[in-house]
Amino acid sequence: MAIPTIADVRKALIARPGKPFVLKDLSTEDKALFPNKEEAETSLKKDAACINELKDKLYAEGKRALLVVLQGMDTAGKSGTIKSVFKDTTPLGMEVKAFKAPSSEELARDYLWRVHNAVPRRGHVGIFDRSHYEDVLVAKVRSLAPAADIEQRYDQINAFEKHLTENGYVIVKCMLNIGHEEQGVRLKERLQEEHKLWKFNPGDLDDRALWPQFMDAYETAINRCSTKHAPWHIIPADSRTRRNAMIARLVRGALEEMDLKWKDPGHDPGSYEI
Amino acid sequence: MAIPTIADVRKALIARPGKPFVLKDLSTEDKALFPNKEEAETSLKKDAACINELKDKLYAEGKRALLVVLQGMDTAGKSGTIKSVFKDTTPLGMEVKAFKAPSSEELARDYLWRVHNAVPRRGHVGIFDRSHYEDVLVAKVRSLAPAADIEQRYDQINAFEKHLTENGYVIVKCMLNIGHEEQGVRLKERLQEEHKLWKFNPGDLDDRALWPQFMDAYETAINRCSTKHAPWHIIPADSRTRRNAMIARLVRGALEEMDLKWKDPGHDPGSYEI
Repeated sequence: MAIPTIADVRKALIARPGKPFVLKDLSTEDKALFPNKEEAETSLKKDAACINELKDKLYAEGKRALLVVLQGMDTAGKSGTIKSVFKDTTPLGMEVKAFKAPSSEELARDYLWRVHNAVPRRGHVGIFDRSHYEDVLVAKVRSLAPAADIEQRYDQINAFEKHLTENGYVIVKCMLNIGHEEQGVRLKERLQEEHKLWKFNPGDLDDRALWPQFMDAYETAINRCSTKHAPWHIIPADSRTRRNAMIARLVRGALEEMDLKWKDPGHDPGSYEI
Repeated sequence: MAIPTIADVRKALIARPGKPFVLKDLSTEDKALFPNKEEAETSLKKDAACINELKDKLYAEGKRALLVVLQGMDTAGKSGTIKSVFKDTTPLGMEVKAFKAPSSEELARDYLWRVHNAVPRRGHVGIFDRSHYEDVLVAKVRSLAPAADIEQRYDQINAFEKHLTENGYVIVKCMLNIGHEEQGVRLKERLQEEHKLWKFNPGDLDDRALWPQFMDAYETAINRCSTKHAPWHIIPADSRTRRNAMIARLVRGALEEMDLKWKDPGHDPGSYEI
């Protein structure tokens, strides 16, 4: 047993751009990458430390930015992922944006207005806890916009993400794929544990009742918006430990590919007397 | 002599999408549409009143927005246009954004970040005094970004404007085409008149020295970004009165085409006793 390479993790989890994607073909409890839970923990530990160092280099360079997009049903582990994958990362240079129901100010402009506004500064790592994909997920399932408008959004989102990647942004998109049964278990936990109860929202049950419709909307969004410049990765999310380990591999991989170097300040440190 | 129809004004001034556009073929002092200056004044007066009423309907509807983009060399009359075309329009529901050199906060994101942030609310009229086109004009002439990056921006701008028009925005783009000689006259005026002196910036002379390069950059931008969803109009701008009259016709035309109706509040005013 060994920790799977970043290339292997990517290959296993990516929704290949241009290839038909079927969500129900994927197991939410797939353990193929990390059969052994302890190995997932070891991998996460190493990657989390590495991510911290790479993020410092990104900050020092100050020219590019990493944007991690996390999507998933309630309890899929978006917050848990942030806490784990970035557990060694100081908040300096980190921007986490949790997208809630749009405010009246936000509704008064196009749906990408608040999203574009929230992109991280150059040198930073931005995390979207939910994102513009809500505008083709919940907006579609609950008919919050005309169907013809939603149909146009996939191409608009692709153009927006392409624009960002052409302007110094690297985008890592992860769909946290939790099973219906496991969600039931986690929602019950929320009702039973004091430190989780605050997260429970009766509205979560309304979304749970629309599970097949949400899965259809996810499948369409991934089919339409897994692109070469910003592909989707589908993370089996029934196991928290493995989910964290897989996403950490992807985030580390994205940062490593940026080929970050400590910035050369352009002067000779030996020339100073202090 | 009669006031030219909106259709005639559009036809005369539009840079036809997909057709080669040559800026130097156009006269900056063309008086064909308004041979008679008094008629231009009469036309402006009528249109300005009309624009005010249409803007109130847009505000009441609250679903769509008009965005007027004004570009032109120094002294071409961007501020003067706003003062004249909207002279009867109350500031309620108007948003004027003058784009200056980007701040450090703005430079820390992609170049469209500050532009998207400034799009008007639904129900409002937004005016861009300079715009994202500066990123393919001054940025190109002064090499403020790598040439390969600037080359990508035309398509990025088209995608951004398409996104806006698909999301309830109507865009009217006007290039205020002033002649080199007339600019010289106006810059001298700025130096001689106390109420204009504050507008004089020695940097304007640097841009003036690069006139041919700026004209080339305008020509390329108009060729690449005059699209079906957001065409460019080239306004002969040596005559202030005619310039204002022509732009007022275009703005009124755009608002009329939106087919704005007083919003039906959905209740019977006869049912109230006050």
